[in-house]
Amino acid sequence: MSAPDGRSGAGRGELTRPRPVARPLAVAIAGLGTVGAGVAKLLRDNAELIAARAGRPIAVTAVSSRDRTRDRGVPVAGLRWYEDAVAIAADPAIDVVVETIGGSEGPARALVEAAIAAGKPVVTANKALLAVHGAALAEQAEARGVTLAFEAAVAGGIPAIKALREGLAANRISRVAGILNGTCNYILTTMRERGLQFAEVLADAQRLGYAEADPAFDIDGVDAAHKLAILAALAFGRPVDLGAVHIEGIREVSALDIELAEELGYRIKLLGIAKREESGISTRVHPCMVPKAAAIGRVEGVFNAVVAEGDFVGRVMLEGRGAGAGPTASAVVADLIDLARGRLTPVWGAATDALSHAPSLPMEKHVGAYYLRLMVLDRPGVIADVTGVLRDHAISLESMLQRGRAPGEAVPIVLTTHDCVEGRMREALARIEALPTVVEKPALIRIEGL
Amino acid sequence: MSAPDGRSGAGRGELTRPRPVARPLAVAIAGLGTVGAGVAKLLRDNAELIAARAGRPIAVTAVSSRDRTRDRGVPVAGLRWYEDAVAIAADPAIDVVVETIGGSEGPARALVEAAIAAGKPVVTANKALLAVHGAALAEQAEARGVTLAFEAAVAGGIPAIKALREGLAANRISRVAGILNGTCNYILTTMRERGLQFAEVLADAQRLGYAEADPAFDIDGVDAAHKLAILAALAFGRPVDLGAVHIEGIREVSALDIELAEELGYRIKLLGIAKREESGISTRVHPCMVPKAAAIGRVEGVFNAVVAEGDFVGRVMLEGRGAGAGPTASAVVADLIDLARGRLTPVWGAATDALSHAPSLPMEKHVGAYYLRLMVLDRPGVIADVTGVLRDHAISLESMLQRGRAPGEAVPIVLTTHDCVEGRMREALARIEALPTVVEKPALIRIEGL
Repeated sequence: MSAPDGRSGAGRGELTRPRPVARPLAVAIAGLGTVGAGVAKLLRDNAELIAARAGRPIAVTAVSSRDRTRDRGVPVAGLRWYEDAVAIAADPAIDVVVETIGGSEGPARALVEAAIAAGKPVVTANKALLAVHGAALAEQAEARGVTLAFEAAVAGGIPAIKALREGLAANRISRVAGILNGTCNYILTTMRERGLQFAEVLADAQRLGYAEADPAFDIDGVDAAHKLAILAALAFGRPVDLGAVHIEGIREVSALDIELAEELGYRIKLLGIAKREESGISTRVHPCMVPKAAAIGRVEGVFNAVVAEGDFVGRVMLEGRGAGAGPTASAVVADLIDLARGRLTPVWGAATDALSHAPSLPMEKHVGAYYLRLMVLDRPGVIADVTGVLRDHAISLESMLQRGRAPGEAVPIVLTTHDCVEGRMREALARIEALPTVVEKPALIRIEGL
Repeated sequence: MSAPDGRSGAGRGELTRPRPVARPLAVAIAGLGTVGAGVAKLLRDNAELIAARAGRPIAVTAVSSRDRTRDRGVPVAGLRWYEDAVAIAADPAIDVVVETIGGSEGPARALVEAAIAAGKPVVTANKALLAVHGAALAEQAEARGVTLAFEAAVAGGIPAIKALREGLAANRISRVAGILNGTCNYILTTMRERGLQFAEVLADAQRLGYAEADPAFDIDGVDAAHKLAILAALAFGRPVDLGAVHIEGIREVSALDIELAEELGYRIKLLGIAKREESGISTRVHPCMVPKAAAIGRVEGVFNAVVAEGDFVGRVMLEGRGAGAGPTASAVVADLIDLARGRLTPVWGAATDALSHAPSLPMEKHVGAYYLRLMVLDRPGVIADVTGVLRDHAISLESMLQRGRAPGEAVPIVLTTHDCVEGRMREALARIEALPTVVEKPALIRIEGL
C-alpha cells in the first residue's frame, strides 16, 4: 500500500498503514436518516484515517431502518438488517450501538436502554433522550459499566461535550452559554440583515430547508433547552434537569426590536445560559441582547457557538456548524474512536455518587438588565406613568429612547434598565401593560453581558 | 462533608463526594515558575472537583526547583524536593511527571527522556521540546508504552490539542490555522487601535509585562512556529517537522500597512497556517491580511484562536487565552485528569507506524494573493515600471491604490494581486526593489482567505 518513496497511496498524505491486526470494532447504526447515513458515509470515506486514529478499524456491520429500499447514498448490501431496532441489543456480534433514530421515547429509548442492559456501549446524537432521561440512563450505564456517549447531541460538529467534560475539567465553571439552535440563529440573522419580520423569514427558511415544516421544536426554544440542560449538567457536574430550564423562543422577536437593538449596540440572539449563582444553578433559553462587539454576537447564520467560563482558564469559545449530516457524523465517529481507544468518561463527567445536587433556581429569581419596548400613544404624561411604575418597583433606568413623534398616535419608546430581579420586573410589566396609553403587548428582552 | 440537605459543603454546588478510595495519583512538578506554581495552585484550589472528574485524587507529592526559598504563593512544605529535576524520574513513589521547566534542551529534555525511559507518563507545557524533539520522544514513549501529553503546549487554556486529535479525529483535515502568540496579537491589535508603530507598542508591552525583556522568540514568530509544527503534526498525522516551517515575525509590520489594510477591509494578524496541498503539506508563520469580517480577524489582544477545517465537520474555531498561569495550568491538569481516567492517545494521534510521510512543501511553492506596498517617487511612469515587472512575471493585479500626491517626493502605492506562486512573486519583488523610483524596502504581506 505504500508507494516506493514511503508516502501513502495516491500521495494524499493520509494517516495510513494502520496496524489492522486488531479486530474491527463492529458498529450497528439504528436509524438511517440524514445522520445515520452520514455516519455510514464517514466511516466508509475516511476508513483508513479513522483506523489509524482509533488503533483499529471501525466497521458498520448492521443497520436498522424500516424502509429497506430507499437509496441513502451509502451501500447497505451485506449488512445485517434489523426491522426492529431494539433487536440489535441482543446481537452478540455488535460491539457498539449508534442510535440516530431520535426522539425521547419510542424505539430510540427502548434501544438505548436495551443496549445498556446488554452491556453494549451506546453512541447517540439524541439530545431529547439525554435531556429527558439522561439522569436515569447515566445510572443504568454506570451500573452496567458501559459508556453512553453523545458528542453529537450538542452543537453538532463542535467538540463541545469533550471540551467541557475533559478539556476544561480542571475548572470550576461559572457560566456556560451558547447559540445552540442554527435555525433560530439563521432566522434572527436574516431578519437583521434584510429587515424582515419573523414570519417572512421563517417561511423562506422552510422553503430552503433550514427550518422544519413544523418548526415549533426549534423556534420555541425546546431544542436549545435540551442542549442547554445537557451542557449545564456537564458544566456543573450534576444530573441533567430539563424541567428547570426556563424556555422562551423567538416567535415574538420583531424587526423593530432588532433594529432598535442595533441602535443601542446590541444583537439579538437566542441563547441558552447556565450560570452558577450563590444559591444554585440557573438555566434559561430566551432571546438576549448581546453587545455587538462580543464574540458570540458575531456568530451568524446557521453557526453555533458555546462559551464556557472557568476559574482558571477564563473564557473559551467554540464555534462551528451545529447541524447537518457531516458535522453530526463527525461527532458520532469521534465518540466511536474514543471507544475504540478505550477513552472512557462517565456520562456527566463524574460518577453518579460524586455528582452535585446544587438546586435549580427559578426564573423569578433571575437578576439582570432588561430592554423594554412599548408602543404608546404619543400624549403628555405617558413617560411619567411608565417611569412611575418602574420607580414603584425599585427598577432603575439605564437609558430611554423615544422614536419619532406622532401626536395622538402610537410611537415606540425604549427603556433599558440596570440589573433588577425578574420577579419585580414582571410585576412592573403587568402594570405597564395595563396602562391605557400602552397600546400593544410590550416587548421585553433580557440584556446579557457576554 | 455533605450538608444534611444533600448539598455539597458551603453550598457551592461543587462536584463533591468523589469516592476517594482509589490511591491518589502522585504528581511531581519539575519547575516552579509561573506555570508550575499555577499547576500546584489549581490542584490545591479545585482538589475535590478534580478528584470527582478524575475518579481519584490528584496530589502533588514532589517538586523540583533550584530556589527553595522563593515564595510562589503555594505551599511546598511537606513535599519531596529535588534540586536535580532528572532525579524525579527514579522516584518510585511518583506516578506522573509534570515538566514546566521549559526549553528544548537541558534539564527539561533530560527529565522527559529519563521519565519516559523509566516508564513514567509525562505531562508538559513545553512547545519547544515537542517541536524540536517530538518525533523522537513519541517513538520513545511508544516503545515504553507511556503517555506524553502536552495540551498546554499550544494555545494555553484552549483545548486545541484535544479538539484536533480526538474531537475532530474522524475528519480529513485540509487546513489548520491559528493566532498562536498572544504577545504578537496584542502588539498588532494595539498598533491598530492606537495608530502606533511597532517599536512603541513593543516598549509599552514590555513595561506591562505582555512582552519579554528579550522579545525575539515571540515577535520573530519562533514561538508560533513551534506551536504550528505541533498542530500540523496532529492535523495531518505525521511526525512533527519544525524545520519545514517558513517563519516571519512582525517586526516589519508598519502602522501604515495596518491603516491601509483597514481601508482594504483587512486586519493584519500573525498566523500559523498548515495546509494540505496536492503534493504535500505547507507550514508557515507570517503576518497575514485576513478579512475584517472573518472570525479570526476579530480575535484581538492577547487572545489566541485555532481554526480547523475538516471534510465532514466544516470549519471549527476555538478561541481563548493562550498564555498565563491559570489557562496553562488548566490545560496541564486536564492532561492529568485524562491520565487518571486512563484516557490515552498516541502523541501524534496514531501509532508511529500508522503516521503519514507526506512531504513538507517549500515556501517558494506557496500559491496565494499578496499585498504589496511600495514607497515610490511621485513621478510619471513609476506605475508603468512596477506593473510592467509584475506582467513580466505573469502576476495579475486585483487592485491598486495610490495614496496622496506629492510630485517628486515619496508616496505609497498599494497593489493587491490575484493568486500567484511565491517564487515568482519574490523574483518580481527583487526587480521592483531595484527600480530607481522605489525608495524603501517594499512591504509584502500575504492575503489569506479564512
